[in-house]
Amino acid sequence: METFARLDFGRRERTGFGETVFGAGKTPEQLAKIFAAFRAERQPVLATRCTAEQAAHLAEAGVACTWDPVSRTIVSDGRRNPPLKGLVAVCTGGTADMPVAEEAAKTVEFFGARVLRLFDVGVAGLHRLLSRLDDIRSADVVIAVAGMEGALGSVIAGLVGAPVVAVPTSVGYGAGAGGLAPLLAMLNSCAEGLSVVNIDNGFGAAVCACRMLKLRR
Amino acid sequence: METFARLDFGRRERTGFGETVFGAGKTPEQLAKIFAAFRAERQPVLATRCTAEQAAHLAEAGVACTWDPVSRTIVSDGRRNPPLKGLVAVCTGGTADMPVAEEAAKTVEFFGARVLRLFDVGVAGLHRLLSRLDDIRSADVVIAVAGMEGALGSVIAGLVGAPVVAVPTSVGYGAGAGGLAPLLAMLNSCAEGLSVVNIDNGFGAAVCACRMLKLRR
Amino acid sequence: METFARLDFGRRERTGFGETVFGAGKTPEQLAKIFAAFRAERQPVLATRCTAEQAAHLAEAGVACTWDPVSRTIVSDGRRNPPLKGLVAVCTGGTADMPVAEEAAKTVEFFGARVLRLFDVGVAGLHRLLSRLDDIRSADVVIAVAGMEGALGSVIAGLVGAPVVAVPTSVGYGAGAGGLAPLLAMLNSCAEGLSVVNIDNGFGAAVCACRMLKLRR
Amino acid sequence: METFARLDFGRRERTGFGETVFGAGKTPEQLAKIFAAFRAERQPVLATRCTAEQAAHLAEAGVACTWDPVSRTIVSDGRRNPPLKGLVAVCTGGTADMPVAEEAAKTVEFFGARVLRLFDVGVAGLHRLLSRLDDIRSADVVIAVAGMEGALGSVIAGLVGAPVVAVPTSVGYGAGAGGLAPLLAMLNSCAEGLSVVNIDNGFGAAVCACRMLKLRR
Amino acid sequence: METFARLDFGRRERTGFGETVFGAGKTPEQLAKIFAAFRAERQPVLATRCTAEQAAHLAEAGVACTWDPVSRTIVSDGRRNPPLKGLVAVCTGGTADMPVAEEAAKTVEFFGARVLRLFDVGVAGLHRLLSRLDDIRSADVVIAVAGMEGALGSVIAGLVGAPVVAVPTSVGYGAGAGGLAPLLAMLNSCAEGLSVVNIDNGFGAAVCACRMLKLRR
Amino acid sequence: METFARLDFGRRERTGFGETVFGAGKTPEQLAKIFAAFRAERQPVLATRCTAEQAAHLAEAGVACTWDPVSRTIVSDGRRNPPLKGLVAVCTGGTADMPVAEEAAKTVEFFGARVLRLFDVGVAGLHRLLSRLDDIRSADVVIAVAGMEGALGSVIAGLVGAPVVAVPTSVGYGAGAGGLAPLLAMLNSCAEGLSVVNIDNGFGAAVCACRMLKLRR
Amino acid sequence: METFARLDFGRRERTGFGETVFGAGKTPEQLAKIFAAFRAERQPVLATRCTAEQAAHLAEAGVACTWDPVSRTIVSDGRRNPPLKGLVAVCTGGTADMPVAEEAAKTVEFFGARVLRLFDVGVAGLHRLLSRLDDIRSADVVIAVAGMEGALGSVIAGLVGAPVVAVPTSVGYGAGAGGLAPLLAMLNSCAEGLSVVNIDNGFGAAVCACRMLKLRR
Amino acid sequence: METFARLDFGRRERTGFGETVFGAGKTPEQLAKIFAAFRAERQPVLATRCTAEQAAHLAEAGVACTWDPVSRTIVSDGRRNPPLKGLVAVCTGGTADMPVAEEAAKTVEFFGARVLRLFDVGVAGLHRLLSRLDDIRSADVVIAVAGMEGALGSVIAGLVGAPVVAVPTSVGYGAGAGGLAPLLAMLNSCAEGLSVVNIDNGFGAAVCACRMLKLRR
Repeated sequence: METFARLDFGRRERTGFGETVFGAGKTPEQLAKIFAAFRAERQPVLATRCTAEQAAHLAEAGVACTWDPVSRTIVSDGRRNPPLKGLVAVCTGGTADMPVAEEAAKTVEFFGARVLRLFDVGVAGLHRLLSRLDDIRSADVVIAVAGMEGALGSVIAGLVGAPVVAVPTSVGYGAGAGGLAPLLAMLNSCAEGLSVVNIDNGFGAAVCACRMLKLRR
Repeated sequence: METFARLDFGRRERTGFGETVFGAGKTPEQLAKIFAAFRAERQPVLATRCTAEQAAHLAEAGVACTWDPVSRTIVSDGRRNPPLKGLVAVCTGGTADMPVAEEAAKTVEFFGARVLRLFDVGVAGLHRLLSRLDDIRSADVVIAVAGMEGALGSVIAGLVGAPVVAVPTSVGYGAGAGGLAPLLAMLNSCAEGLSVVNIDNGFGAAVCACRMLKLRR
Repeated sequence: METFARLDFGRRERTGFGETVFGAGKTPEQLAKIFAAFRAERQPVLATRCTAEQAAHLAEAGVACTWDPVSRTIVSDGRRNPPLKGLVAVCTGGTADMPVAEEAAKTVEFFGARVLRLFDVGVAGLHRLLSRLDDIRSADVVIAVAGMEGALGSVIAGLVGAPVVAVPTSVGYGAGAGGLAPLLAMLNSCAEGLSVVNIDNGFGAAVCACRMLKLRR
Repeated sequence: METFARLDFGRRERTGFGETVFGAGKTPEQLAKIFAAFRAERQPVLATRCTAEQAAHLAEAGVACTWDPVSRTIVSDGRRNPPLKGLVAVCTGGTADMPVAEEAAKTVEFFGARVLRLFDVGVAGLHRLLSRLDDIRSADVVIAVAGMEGALGSVIAGLVGAPVVAVPTSVGYGAGAGGLAPLLAMLNSCAEGLSVVNIDNGFGAAVCACRMLKLRR
Repeated sequence: METFARLDFGRRERTGFGETVFGAGKTPEQLAKIFAAFRAERQPVLATRCTAEQAAHLAEAGVACTWDPVSRTIVSDGRRNPPLKGLVAVCTGGTADMPVAEEAAKTVEFFGARVLRLFDVGVAGLHRLLSRLDDIRSADVVIAVAGMEGALGSVIAGLVGAPVVAVPTSVGYGAGAGGLAPLLAMLNSCAEGLSVVNIDNGFGAAVCACRMLKLRR
Repeated sequence: METFARLDFGRRERTGFGETVFGAGKTPEQLAKIFAAFRAERQPVLATRCTAEQAAHLAEAGVACTWDPVSRTIVSDGRRNPPLKGLVAVCTGGTADMPVAEEAAKTVEFFGARVLRLFDVGVAGLHRLLSRLDDIRSADVVIAVAGMEGALGSVIAGLVGAPVVAVPTSVGYGAGAGGLAPLLAMLNSCAEGLSVVNIDNGFGAAVCACRMLKLRR
Repeated sequence: METFARLDFGRRERTGFGETVFGAGKTPEQLAKIFAAFRAERQPVLATRCTAEQAAHLAEAGVACTWDPVSRTIVSDGRRNPPLKGLVAVCTGGTADMPVAEEAAKTVEFFGARVLRLFDVGVAGLHRLLSRLDDIRSADVVIAVAGMEGALGSVIAGLVGAPVVAVPTSVGYGAGAGGLAPLLAMLNSCAEGLSVVNIDNGFGAAVCACRMLKLRR
Repeated sequence: METFARLDFGRRERTGFGETVFGAGKTPEQLAKIFAAFRAERQPVLATRCTAEQAAHLAEAGVACTWDPVSRTIVSDGRRNPPLKGLVAVCTGGTADMPVAEEAAKTVEFFGARVLRLFDVGVAGLHRLLSRLDDIRSADVVIAVAGMEGALGSVIAGLVGAPVVAVPTSVGYGAGAGGLAPLLAMLNSCAEGLSVVNIDNGFGAAVCACRMLKLRR
């Protein structure tokens, strides 16, 4: 395994959260070896950006794991992560943002915290968001996932007091496509209390949220 | 005058709205000659992007006109434009968007229509916008002026049925500065019924709005 | 259906135009469910950016609808939208702009207004445009669809008095490809009365035009 | 005051943190009026991006406040914000990042939390950072301020378990100048637990950090 | 002089056109030395992008030369360039393009050819251009100078058979400012027979035109 | 045919060169109809950016034409264009630029002029170019085709007196890929007498060259 | 062969390193002819960016050569390059950078020098790099290969005295994807002694390193 | 001094070259304190990007140092750096590149190596470069400084066997201004053996060259 990955099993010690796997670009065989290495260390494992083909190979190879096609994650939790107190609200602007939002949600759940999903509450139909305001306010951290003009984060951060992690998605086309428009909008938010991760990085937003939850002790 | 400008006095015939003047970069002397030419044609004149120095020169030269420092417009209306039926709402996200919004408002008024100003109703404090919703809905056309993340246009277009002309402003800094962030956000709006003009182009938005008002007959 | 879309059947009330469907990225099954939901609400439905495969599935599933391969739209109008007074001219620079132009035209027709198609009248052969000037001047709103250098909008807006909605298309290659060149040209138009929607957004231009037509009462 | 700003005194209620002032572009007279309005509401006030000229005017006008030339902040705290439990480490890559870092530090202190300053610990001389690792690990939240290649955030987030808010600065020149290089580097961090605010937005990072500290109860 | 410039007096031999001087960034003293060097070689000299200050210094130093403030050129032609047969039409979209157009015109005249100036014939008022069509068709080469949406070159190249050299200018603002919009438009022209030089490079367009005129023998 | 193309058979009258066809994106059937229309007008026809599939269809349909796979052109010249006096040198930096160079060469030949091909003479091995200098100097116009750093045009324009039309190609990778690097290099050439067409636009360069040759009478 | 490549067998004389082959875009047949030409000149040959299909064709054609699928190189060294004194360390940030790093390593080995591979030592787990510091310091030249935030080069250049050649890779996604983020980071490095080659250009970095090793005599 | 800079006097030990100072943005007083700190450590000091005002203050303060206005460097070498064997050729494309080239030259000389200056040998007049080829070939390392199209590096790297460090300069205007055009050209060089530093970074190129010279032992 030396030749294609150097797993960092000391990370949990250093940062409080164990090593995870970025599945994109790895062969099913490489992924199977990595899952075996985690098993040998008795660590739970989360792999993101996985394909159905990778999941099928793991299943055939007899690896005990769960494949979620929407979030494209594979989870194997022989020994679970300890529960993390607190609630993370994951909101999306539109249905097309769902894969990124589910990647965030599954990651938060993998690390032991609870998730409240509030999908398709974008700003073009404001009543959808306003009708769920109490739910959003009940969360310790909010993850706002949005493509197109990416205004969801600003609107939420102006309504609640919790830290908001904004995730621009690559949903959109034409000028500002590929997530550029929502990324810039989120960085230029006129609301306070909002920080941003890279385009489509639901996983990254989730780890940020979980590190924040650790402050609740 | 031949050497620096070829005024298009036939434009009113062709398009229904008379020639106007882009003041930026013109010397006070050039501007004075242009105002004289309009006077000779007995046409009212609007000059945009003017400086206090230009205005002072016109005053000294005895040109009957009005200088507005916020919108940076100079208007001379010896013979007024005919009134235009309808109401245009000009909304802004923040106070820094005011010069662009006033350029739009003054232009709409110059062409004979009424303006409703709704400033500083940006999405970070949504209650400000929602409390004025009936006013906005009373307008025939809405001009939404916003910098930063530029979400104002999307939110309004989702709430009203009138056409919305969105004007991104160069308010903001860092990534997406100079108006890029709100321009892209407005072009990627998830709301329908929104069209966009160039950054800081309050004048252009106003002419679009006035052309629309002509449909009311 | 809850899990992939939250249809906004209140939109017609709020904005005067009913909810529509962005077909891109949806599975044929999802689309069929959405059409069923509209039928249950007795609302006509327009879906844009649809594939032949999606259309075939709807046909097999017995959904009464019409598929147009050029505009890539699917329309099902069990109960038609009410007629909208006025005429929208849809002009294109070249033949390659036709899919975007037809998306605009079909949308205008879906919402009940009449369309005048003027295709392949680009500025490299100006006589084609000038010979149709009376036709263009008869329209209440003009939609100018153009790729390459995107000059069509400017030329038309300088010749007519109606509001012009410009749609840059992704036709072109090399520097400024993907629609960037015509988008920037349209935003920088030296003609007045022109506003712009996102690249290839024929649908968006059509809704803008229809909102404008509502001013004719 | 109506004409240039609509202060949002309800924000503290909604989000837990009171309204603040973005000083850039405001006249000294406008700023003085705003400070008076806060005083009338008996709220402490923080203004960022202020000039020496603005500060001098406030002093002459007899407003009780403190001007810090490095962070360019003005603070008037007739009635202080309540203390906020927890420690925020503010780290910088180089000395040129200090104005942004101090803006962050002063804002955190304004909202009642303690700050640990660790300046000039950039990655080109790694020993400087490693020798202060215990200090950094003692913080509840880390704000990493860096220009140039912006690697500081990644290195820190790989070494600690606290949430890290990264602030790219406009320090640098040539390709990637104006903060683009560190912004992209931070968004592409291979370390987890890092979120990003806009270029030079020390204030924004500080509010994010303070919202996180509120989770400690 | 060795230390700041290595004049290429062999260029006339190699390319048919003598060395010229880019005045921007040179001190008045350096420019005076360069003019002296040309005089010693008995070559006429053209300097572009010169300031009034540079021109005043040359005059004080007794250098026989002519300063043109619009084109910002200085010409000293003790021994003239030989006449070049043919006519170059220099057209502009608007009055703000005049400095670039005059730089082109003066350069063409310096190299011995005749110039036809057709200024302010932009596409927003097409009648201005069409009324001068015979004049434009009489030229051997056309230089089309335009900022904003830069459509002038396309329209002309579709109407005449001569080679067209298009010069985008930095006239414009907002998205595509600094000449980007007209540059991209010109590169994406749907008309044939158009080639492009760098933004504001009137001099370069003129040398291209003169090289073309040399083909007339 | 009306529905997909409006052929401009008057172009030869206006500009001296007949209508041609941009093959990309057209179906084989559309192309066959266009060739038939040209034949009906007894005009020779050149189609660029054609595929082998399009060519095969024309052959099966019995259209008399020639397909060149390197330049991707199809030519049918029942009645040839009249010969055009003069020689065009087509030079390339590397072998990968050959498709673009051959598109230029075939177009020049279609319009009746002679072509000198000088391929693979890029600046990394300067001896290759210098050894052919006399050949290049014998040409009336030079077309310089280059990708990567695009320096070929500058070097040639400094060595010859003919007009040089530079064509950047999309050869290259990484930063500046897709032809951006050579395009910018050619626009910023320190040599004079160089004008530029869009990336990969061999056809456009050829028409420019042929318009120039018309000056030789 | 003349028609698709002009091999530069004099390069070894001029620069000390023989001609090599960029395999991308060449047909297997073209590649076989090139290998034959090298054999005829009794020169060893290295081809980069080759596909398995190209390698299979060479094998079938009986060309004695070695195909390495990770680096995508094909080497045929009938007569080896002379050994080059010195050691080159090739370091990578992550496993995904391996193809680029191996291209560099194979190229260095082809030109006769020794390589020390240090893969997956990125800055998010700094202990991995620090534990190998003595190894890195033993190298004469360091090649630092990294995608994502590209900080590896800066960290190494601050720790060693050897020249460091940094290679940004196209590993990453979202903002700064395609290698832009690490390229800008490397160009903006706050460490000294670092120079940069194009994105994914492992070959180019290797030739730079080998030229440097020639200084050791 | 603690408050604005943390000098790294251990760098000479780690990397072989002592700490230097980036003068831009530092007050004259700060610079004087830094020079005093170096003197206390008995280390020679080089400051780059300095202004005449900074130099004057040091002179008044009695600091023994030399100010060079072209390179904008200040050097104080109470105890010189040890001599470094080898010769570095510093070449420029044009006279406007001289400040950057001199920054490189002065830095190389500061670190003890010899410099050969070859200025104004750009590719538009190739004879200037070719006539100095033997000189360039005598150098151990070449630094190629060029703005505009930045072709100098490619041409030199194709002619010599030494490592070439290319420095793009911000000389140029229009598209690709600010050094973007030469930066991209240099990164895309078709010649081998070329690596690149940031725009205008003469200092960085010099340190790279000096690290390379250390290989000569």
